[in-house]
Amino acid sequence: MSAGPGITVTGASGRMGQMLIRTIMDSERAHLVGAVERTGHAWIGQDVGEAMGGAKLGVTVTDDALEAFAPAQAVIDFTAPTATIAFAKLAAQARAVHVIGTTGFTNEEIEALIPASRHSVQVRAGNMSLGVNLLTMLTEKVARALDEDFDIEIVEAHHNQKVDAPSGTALMLGEAAATGRGVALDRVADRGRDGITGPRTRGHIGFAAIRGGDVVGEHDVIFAAAGERIVLRHLATDRAVFARGALKAALWGQGRSPGAYDMLDVLGLNEG
Amino acid sequence: MSAGPGITVTGASGRMGQMLIRTIMDSERAHLVGAVERTGHAWIGQDVGEAMGGAKLGVTVTDDALEAFAPAQAVIDFTAPTATIAFAKLAAQARAVHVIGTTGFTNEEIEALIPASRHSVQVRAGNMSLGVNLLTMLTEKVARALDEDFDIEIVEAHHNQKVDAPSGTALMLGEAAATGRGVALDRVADRGRDGITGPRTRGHIGFAAIRGGDVVGEHDVIFAAAGERIVLRHLATDRAVFARGALKAALWGQGRSPGAYDMLDVLGLNEG
Amino acid sequence: MSAGPGITVTGASGRMGQMLIRTIMDSERAHLVGAVERTGHAWIGQDVGEAMGGAKLGVTVTDDALEAFAPAQAVIDFTAPTATIAFAKLAAQARAVHVIGTTGFTNEEIEALIPASRHSVQVRAGNMSLGVNLLTMLTEKVARALDEDFDIEIVEAHHNQKVDAPSGTALMLGEAAATGRGVALDRVADRGRDGITGPRTRGHIGFAAIRGGDVVGEHDVIFAAAGERIVLRHLATDRAVFARGALKAALWGQGRSPGAYDMLDVLGLNEG
Amino acid sequence: MSAGPGITVTGASGRMGQMLIRTIMDSERAHLVGAVERTGHAWIGQDVGEAMGGAKLGVTVTDDALEAFAPAQAVIDFTAPTATIAFAKLAAQARAVHVIGTTGFTNEEIEALIPASRHSVQVRAGNMSLGVNLLTMLTEKVARALDEDFDIEIVEAHHNQKVDAPSGTALMLGEAAATGRGVALDRVADRGRDGITGPRTRGHIGFAAIRGGDVVGEHDVIFAAAGERIVLRHLATDRAVFARGALKAALWGQGRSPGAYDMLDVLGLNEG
Repeated sequence: MSAGPGITVTGASGRMGQMLIRTIMDSERAHLVGAVERTGHAWIGQDVGEAMGGAKLGVTVTDDALEAFAPAQAVIDFTAPTATIAFAKLAAQARAVHVIGTTGFTNEEIEALIPASRHSVQVRAGNMSLGVNLLTMLTEKVARALDEDFDIEIVEAHHNQKVDAPSGTALMLGEAAATGRGVALDRVADRGRDGITGPRTRGHIGFAAIRGGDVVGEHDVIFAAAGERIVLRHLATDRAVFARGALKAALWGQGRSPGAYDMLDVLGLNEG
Repeated sequence: MSAGPGITVTGASGRMGQMLIRTIMDSERAHLVGAVERTGHAWIGQDVGEAMGGAKLGVTVTDDALEAFAPAQAVIDFTAPTATIAFAKLAAQARAVHVIGTTGFTNEEIEALIPASRHSVQVRAGNMSLGVNLLTMLTEKVARALDEDFDIEIVEAHHNQKVDAPSGTALMLGEAAATGRGVALDRVADRGRDGITGPRTRGHIGFAAIRGGDVVGEHDVIFAAAGERIVLRHLATDRAVFARGALKAALWGQGRSPGAYDMLDVLGLNEG
Repeated sequence: MSAGPGITVTGASGRMGQMLIRTIMDSERAHLVGAVERTGHAWIGQDVGEAMGGAKLGVTVTDDALEAFAPAQAVIDFTAPTATIAFAKLAAQARAVHVIGTTGFTNEEIEALIPASRHSVQVRAGNMSLGVNLLTMLTEKVARALDEDFDIEIVEAHHNQKVDAPSGTALMLGEAAATGRGVALDRVADRGRDGITGPRTRGHIGFAAIRGGDVVGEHDVIFAAAGERIVLRHLATDRAVFARGALKAALWGQGRSPGAYDMLDVLGLNEG
Repeated sequence: MSAGPGITVTGASGRMGQMLIRTIMDSERAHLVGAVERTGHAWIGQDVGEAMGGAKLGVTVTDDALEAFAPAQAVIDFTAPTATIAFAKLAAQARAVHVIGTTGFTNEEIEALIPASRHSVQVRAGNMSLGVNLLTMLTEKVARALDEDFDIEIVEAHHNQKVDAPSGTALMLGEAAATGRGVALDRVADRGRDGITGPRTRGHIGFAAIRGGDVVGEHDVIFAAAGERIVLRHLATDRAVFARGALKAALWGQGRSPGAYDMLDVLGLNEG
């Protein structure tokens, strides 16, 4: 029950916050010690379990982040850039691992996170899914290993409410493939193939988007040559994978030297 | 060896003609009795097996189609519309099943085939692969059974030399889906999805094209709803499937009443 | 809100019962009018929405099925054979469509359902997912259309807690394939392939089972010949599909003549 | 035409030998300089192109390997262990890269290859396909990165004439996964799953075999956790991939220091 590090969750009432809390409660390797919401939020002062419509968890929601961080060995934070920058300083004071799933940072905001990372472990990633991070690393590696006899195609499927194509993750995979090949993605991307396209240009990277139903997210990176194909595939079937990735990062960070890390570090996949 | 009906192949020297001859030679259910080429072709008068660079087959290539059709119970014909119209008359005279894989007919040319079909069995299809024909039928059927809660997406993969997208077969499958739904394909087709597309429009049919390596042809028809998906998939890995489909049609036509048939008849899938 | 037929759910407190209630509440084409539990259950007398831990729905849980069926145009029932037989009579009295997702009936119990089906519409299926029912029908049809040049393989994937292999649905698909071929499944099934198996026996139907993660249920029926393959695939990603299938059956049954139906009738796929 | 290194092929008349010769002729990066067959073979003294039933290539088949190796920068050798050991010495004398696709060596025979590798580059692999070698490396890497929350399943599909299951390559992938996890494969392998198996054992590695049609070889390594899956897939669609892998190894070896290498070295994937 109370095994493993104590964890505080920020933005506790949000969809991601609640998912994080449930994930921590379900884990035998960590326990919940704090829940933070912004000043004035209706949940402040309530037991967070009851506020979520379930059983009492013994953790009261607070708007005093410093108080909530003090007993924590890790803080998991999917909020907004400005809040995250403030939380970074408090996490550093508390010597807590700061797991940052917040997205949308400007370059300046990212720089504002650096001072705190000199005093505590920071793990930040745009996508906390273990699988997608792993797939990105593999994609770069395979693209580097194989020459242009292998045509690279990236196919993704998402639910019918998604408004953009290709997905951000597909583009991230495309960037990884282009990096592996030593080319700039925007010079080789084939997007929205339709009509009389002519033969495929050697070295290009193609994208195709499938939209339908409630597909959470599926990505295929295809390397197709004459006579053989390699496919690297990731399927996300539950958004909880992002919460689990964050928890894994929090556990990994325990006892680690201060610094700025990403999910490839957590996975042990960053080489040099 | 000489079991089953005797078959004559037109356009014997072409890529498809040679594949047909090899397919017939490999079959235990039919045998080759004639090989036709156009007047003046280098192969005329040679043994067709030797002309193909292999062993003697005992069949001499001729430009006299009537002579070559006379001993045949079936003629398999992947040539050109004008030639096929002439062959149809000769096949009718010989009471031979006429399997027509020729494509590119105008409506007038198709009408010109009708008189012959009153005297002999004609089987004609734009794609002789059993699998693709079956998939087309299934697609229409499933599209009719399911409502618009199921988003339809058609994904195809072909080799990197293909110059158009989506493939003709993908469009044929899209037509079948639209027919099943009682809509016109050109009003609901989403092609070349890219950029800010907005949410998917209910009832639309999406297309995505993958190009790479030497893929012969792969087609997925996806019906995606909340919580479940049906996928109808066809993979062609060898162009010989077209020859085998034609041979199956030739065998199926034996003893059948004269008339114009297609591959769905051969497969026993035409209902009413 | 109150559009469409009123529906009563039996076994309201069970996992499937709650899912049915949520599915009906989310639909614009039906509304909830009753919720039944067995005598003595803790939920009796409570508002069913509140009992489920959410907002009040204005429907009180009762153990008086006749009272709960009276205002209903349909009853959806995933309980147990004995209860279902009793409910069938009450549904017939109420002239309500009776959708039966209950499984495990003996042949005698199935016969006991017949009298009620003379007075009301009964829809019964072992698997209420539209997709799986459709796949079963397609499997039989394709197996009938294709000869033994096409090897049939059935591959299924399920979560790591599943205790049996192949899945019941895989065996149901195998039965459909065997029926299409006119053979008995138990004479042609290749299960648990391992070691020196020798070449595949023509006409056999193979099964393979994948177990991992939390996969809800995936089934592939593969028809593999030289040079081409057809794959019929179903993916279930959310158990709610069974609830939605039941609701669809309830809507379909409105105004229909009394009788015993299955999901193929609902899908319009029963021919003759 | 005569660009790139000159290559000699041993066992020139065999299925693999002819495929190698065609692959070299089709390449712009290498050219054929020698063709070896065993003493007494019918092809000795003939032009190898003509012996293969095609055009003259200007290379005469010989049983004098030393003579055939002298002008070569590389020797590609898919023969038998005894012949290969002899060829290794001659390749070392000729300072030619020796690419060994021969299989079935005993440990003693492998040791007999070592002396030659001190004088020339030797590249040896049981499977010369780039893709399969890459997949093996990736499998070990991913298995090491992910914990036992990810269930590993290896699924393979092959043609209906294959006599054993799982395939050798599937077992090789299983070994790679087990190595990545630090366990012995034979202690964790779940093969031939059938009947009442009970829940999946955490940490086990499952195998499933699909047999049908003329599938050349398909392998999936699935890592399935709650909410997400990674799949590493290889599809071989043409046996020529083995010849192309060998040619790539021959080109890679040019100018390299003497030593014993494998395909992971060729792919740049061996990390200390």
